[in-house]
Parts: sequence; C-alpha cells; structure tokens
Amino acid sequence: MKTIQITDISKFNEIQSVDNSIATDIQAHLDDLTKPQGSLGQLEDIAMRYCLVTGTAKPIMGKKRIYCFAGDHGVAAEGVSAFPAEVTPQMVMNMLAGGAAINVLTKHADAELVIVDMGVNDPLEAAEGLVRMKVRSGTDNIAVGPAMSMDEVKQAIMSGVELAATAAEDGVTLLGTGEMGIANTTPATALYSAYLNCPVEDITGRGTGIDDTRLQHKIEVIKKSLAVNKDKLDDPLSTLAAVGGFEIAGICGLILGGALYGIPVVVDGFISTAAATAACAINSNVRDYLFFSHTSNEQGHKKILDKLQIKSILDLGLRLGEGTGAALAMTIIDASIKIYNEMATFSSAAVAGEEE
Amino acid sequence: MKTIQITDISKFNEIQSVDNSIATDIQAHLDDLTKPQGSLGQLEDIAMRYCLVTGTAKPIMGKKRIYCFAGDHGVAAEGVSAFPAEVTPQMVMNMLAGGAAINVLTKHADAELVIVDMGVNDPLEAAEGLVRMKVRSGTDNIAVGPAMSMDEVKQAIMSGVELAATAAEDGVTLLGTGEMGIANTTPATALYSAYLNCPVEDITGRGTGIDDTRLQHKIEVIKKSLAVNKDKLDDPLSTLAAVGGFEIAGICGLILGGALYGIPVVVDGFISTAAATAACAINSNVRDYLFFSHTSNEQGHKKILDKLQIKSILDLGLRLGEGTGAALAMTIIDASIKIYNEMATFSSAAVAGEEE
Repeated sequence: MKTIQITDISKFNEIQSVDNSIATDIQAHLDDLTKPQGSLGQLEDIAMRYCLVTGTAKPIMGKKRIYCFAGDHGVAAEGVSAFPAEVTPQMVMNMLAGGAAINVLTKHADAELVIVDMGVNDPLEAAEGLVRMKVRSGTDNIAVGPAMSMDEVKQAIMSGVELAATAAEDGVTLLGTGEMGIANTTPATALYSAYLNCPVEDITGRGTGIDDTRLQHKIEVIKKSLAVNKDKLDDPLSTLAAVGGFEIAGICGLILGGALYGIPVVVDGFISTAAATAACAINSNVRDYLFFSHTSNEQGHKKILDKLQIKSILDLGLRLGEGTGAALAMTIIDASIKIYNEMATFSSAAVAGEEE
Repeated sequence: MKTIQITDISKFNEIQSVDNSIATDIQAHLDDLTKPQGSLGQLEDIAMRYCLVTGTAKPIMGKKRIYCFAGDHGVAAEGVSAFPAEVTPQMVMNMLAGGAAINVLTKHADAELVIVDMGVNDPLEAAEGLVRMKVRSGTDNIAVGPAMSMDEVKQAIMSGVELAATAAEDGVTLLGTGEMGIANTTPATALYSAYLNCPVEDITGRGTGIDDTRLQHKIEVIKKSLAVNKDKLDDPLSTLAAVGGFEIAGICGLILGGALYGIPVVVDGFISTAAATAACAINSNVRDYLFFSHTSNEQGHKKILDKLQIKSILDLGLRLGEGTGAALAMTIIDASIKIYNEMATFSSAAVAGEEE
C-alpha cells in the first residue's frame, strides 16, 4: 500500500465515512454461512465493520500491531497517582524486556508490539521495539497551565499519523492503541469533561488505585486544570494541547492515520478512548474506523461509553491500560474474520435452511 | 494422569469443593506481577480459579478440548424450532467436514474438537473426529411423556464421564462443552423451570429464530411437558430423564467428570448451562470447577445467569451453541494463564511499587 504523507492538519477534514455500498454483499455472505442468521451476534457485526473499513467483501487479516505510546505528565507532581512518576520509564524498560502484561497479551494475540516514546522523562536510548519520537520530557502541569504548545500537540499527532503510514506499508491490517504514563487518567478525565461536558466528579476514578482522600484531591486538580485552561477549550486541537498529554496526542494521531489509510483501529481503555474522543472531535467520521475493545474498570469509562452509545467488545474488569484490552479484543476480531472466511455455506454444505 | 473409572452414579456424591489452602500463594504471585494489584480484573480471577481447580500455584495449560454432543429430540415434532430435525445430522456432517462455526473457533482457540453422537436420528457412520455413543436415535416427545428412561439418562451421563476420563489421560487441562440438536432449547428451558423454579414465559426464547406465534406455541409445549412429567421432577436425575435430552445428559456427565478428575470445564451457552444446572443439582460442589463462557442472546440465559449469580466471561450476543462461546472463552482463559506464568515480577523487573 502506498500511503500519502500527511503533513498538514487540515488533511483530517478529508476523512470520509466508510462506503456502505458493499454492505449488501457482505450481509448476503454472512447469511449464507451454516448458522441461523445473526446467531453469531457481535462476531458478525465486527466482520461487517472490518469489511467496510477495509473496503472489501473479501477481507484479509494481515499483520496486527499495537503501538504503546509512553509519556510523562507534569501533573504527576500534584500527587494524583498511587505510583511515582519514575515508573513510566521503568515500565517502558519492562516492556522492552518483554515482562509487561502487554508483551504477554500481544504475543497471545499474534500481534506485534511497538513502544513509542512520545514524551518520557528519561533519555531512553535506542532499543529494539522502541520508536523514539519524544516531543519533550513530559508535559507541563495542567493544573497551572497548558500541557503543551500547539506546535507540540501537532508534532505528537503527526508522529501517530506517521506510525499508521508505516504500519500500512508493512502490511498491518489491524491497529491497536496502548499507553503508559503515570498520572495519565488525570488529563484523560479532563479531556472527557472538556469534549463531552461530563461533570468531573462523575467520571474521575482511582487510576492505578488511589484512596478516597487522593481521589477527592484528584477531582480538585482536574477542576483546577479545566479552570486555568478554560480559554483554550473551545477548539478540539487546543483542548488536546491544554489538558492532554504527549502519548494521548500520539494515539489521537494513530487513530486519525488509521482512518486516513483505511486501517481499523482497536481502541484500548480509558486513556485511549479519550484520545479517540479527541480524534472524533477533530472529524466525527473517524468513528467508523474504530473498534472499542473493552469497558474498563476505571470508573467513568462505562459512563463515557454509554454516553457515546458504544457497546465494547469485552468487559473483563481490566484497568491496566498499555493496550491490554486492545490485544484481547484483537483475538475476537481475528475470530470474526475467520468465521467470515472459513465457514461453509448452506449451499456448499447441503444443510437445510429455515422452514418457511 | 491415572483416572478412576466411574461406573456408579453415587460416586458423584464424593465431589468436593476445591481446596482453597493454596489461594494465598496464588494471590501473592498475582500481586507481585508488574501491574497495579487487581488491575487485570477477570483475568486474575480466572487464573486464581484455574489454579484452584487444578490444585497448583504453578499452573500448566495443556491441551484444550471441546466435546460437541449431538442428539435429536422427539419434541421437534411439535414444531418448536425454525429448522427441520434433519438439520441435526446434516450439521454433524458439516462439523465432521470442518465447515461449521465451531470448527473455525476451536481451531482459532488452538483447541481440539470432538463430536459425540449421543442420540442423533441417523446412523452416522464411523468418522474421524466422531465418537459414537448413541443411546437411542432421539428422545421421546417430552410433551407426551419422559424424554428417556432412567437407564438411558445414566448411560448418557456415564458416557460424558468417560470422555472426561479420556481427556484427562490425553493431557487435556481445559474442557469445553458444546451441542447440536434441533429443538433443544425446549428441553433446556423445561430443565431451568424444573430445577430453578423459573416461570416458563420469562425464560423461553426464540432459539434459532422463531416468530411470535411459534414462540407462544413453544411456551405452551414446555408447560405441557412439565405438567405431564410432574411426578418425575422431584429428583435431579429423574428430572433430567423426564425433560432433558441425550446431548444435555452427556454434557452433564462431562461436567461431573471434569469435577471428578480436576479439569476445569468451560460451559457454553443456554443449553450447556442447563446441563451445568443439572450437574450442580446432583452435587452443588461442581460449581467450583466451571467457567461460564458467555451470556447468550437466547432470551432467558441472562436471567438464569443472574439468578445463579454468575458473571460470564464474554457477552457477544451469540446464540448459536455448538460450543462457540466456550471456544472463544478458552482464548481468554489461555491468556489468563499466560499472564500468570509469563509476566515479570516487581522484584525481578526493578519497577517501583505503589507509594505508601
């Protein structure tokens, strides 16, 4: 696949809805498989949507790849997380060594894992499996001002788009998002509040596991972030710059790139859905290209998905991030395409259909 | 593994709850993995339960196998299904040829598939992948009398137990249930009503896809079945004989066998859960050995699972049976054991833990 290099943010206006003209052919094939019509539920819906995104009634599952974006957050200084900020680079090293949950689950899903340094507060030397696209060593503290400049947010988004282009050239047909960044449920929650007008109290959760006192403090920090940045929240891009994060902007770019290049993107959990919300705020047609992998146990995610009228593929009580939900959902999407491609049809298998 | 041959139904009284004495060790290991404690939700619960059933804090995932039990139902003559009865043997042939959904999904799950003829109304000659344990060529019509005799139900159950013993000897560490039998949502619903005292109207669904008129008729047929067999519904075994089916009794036996031999059993959907309900009515300790794979789209299944206080692993709107939900859930269970065995620990990976 020859991808067009995107260097101008206005290109995102050109993202179109998927072409539904082949839906009839796809449905006819699904209905001819040896099973009662519709009896494979979401597997059939997933196969349909995968076909529509990839623009064919004869889908192919190529490579699967998860990009796990890492970044640090100035707001960690406010004490909003149960873990210290140095865990971000430590966990990146753990991922590069193969010991994190996302390593295990991408391998399980027969997917590739690529770690992307978008803004970790550590030099992070070149290593296999690491893409170095650091914008800066951590965002500024959103509780006192914007996380990043407009140039920085554009750079982070364009890095994500570039990774989608690389994936397209490498024969990837299913992308997944993941992230690592201590304190990043704080900017994610601020983004939901800004984009979707959700009350902060309703959607703020315990992240990696904070107690009641710290949860109350986190709510205050998020409210303060929205207040100090309030003149920047009138536009999707400046909102992301003001209360987002480097890894969140990178995911937003990967999603926009997936839509541009016709590659379905499996959105992980609470943080990734915030990035998807940003991408859809930039162009609402992007929604067609997304699979929402799971409902996170991070309180707030279910409310957000309900508000967006999204039924996720899985609901396993995960609240880890990294792309773990996306990896597991990839196995279900994979199964859906196998069902579509490998089952016998009523005509070929000599099985009687429904009685009139 | 040396299995004890079970020939006496009273042996099921000996099934014990799992031994929880190793739970502390298992939890300590889960909490030492490089993730916030509990952040992998159900994956952690599944790993814990798999360890308890297999009796070790160092679990191994061996072979995975789904037994798909097939049988015909005299009650099909009442016109309770959208498909004609000859579809049972036709679908068995389709499975033996590799063209059914369960073929695709067991392959996807890296599981073996074995089809078991428990009572198909067709000679079904010997074939690879088919186990011939036919009790009789279809049950009697439950709307006019018992489905089978007490000797027949025992034979069907013992066949299932024998398959669990074979699996144990073959190195299978995860069993799955599946079924094929036109009209079998009718006996399954009657079983739920008998065992759990559920009103028939509340839990009767459309099976493979019947219309409103036929649904009303199906409700009447189920009520009639319960009425004509009412003197047999006072005991778990005679209930299963009266309003069950050969494939349902076979699944019940496989589940009892799994519990006897310490092999976790992944229960498929609406029909398999009815068989599990029968097994738990015989000995309630059996529940410890079961994973409930998914919430079926067959109306009634969610109500039954809620009543039994079961949170299934998946909820994908499936209503096909065959073992399709069990196969998909096996991939999640597999992932859980990989998480347990393959992730790095905090101590080994030099990652800082939670702050005090």
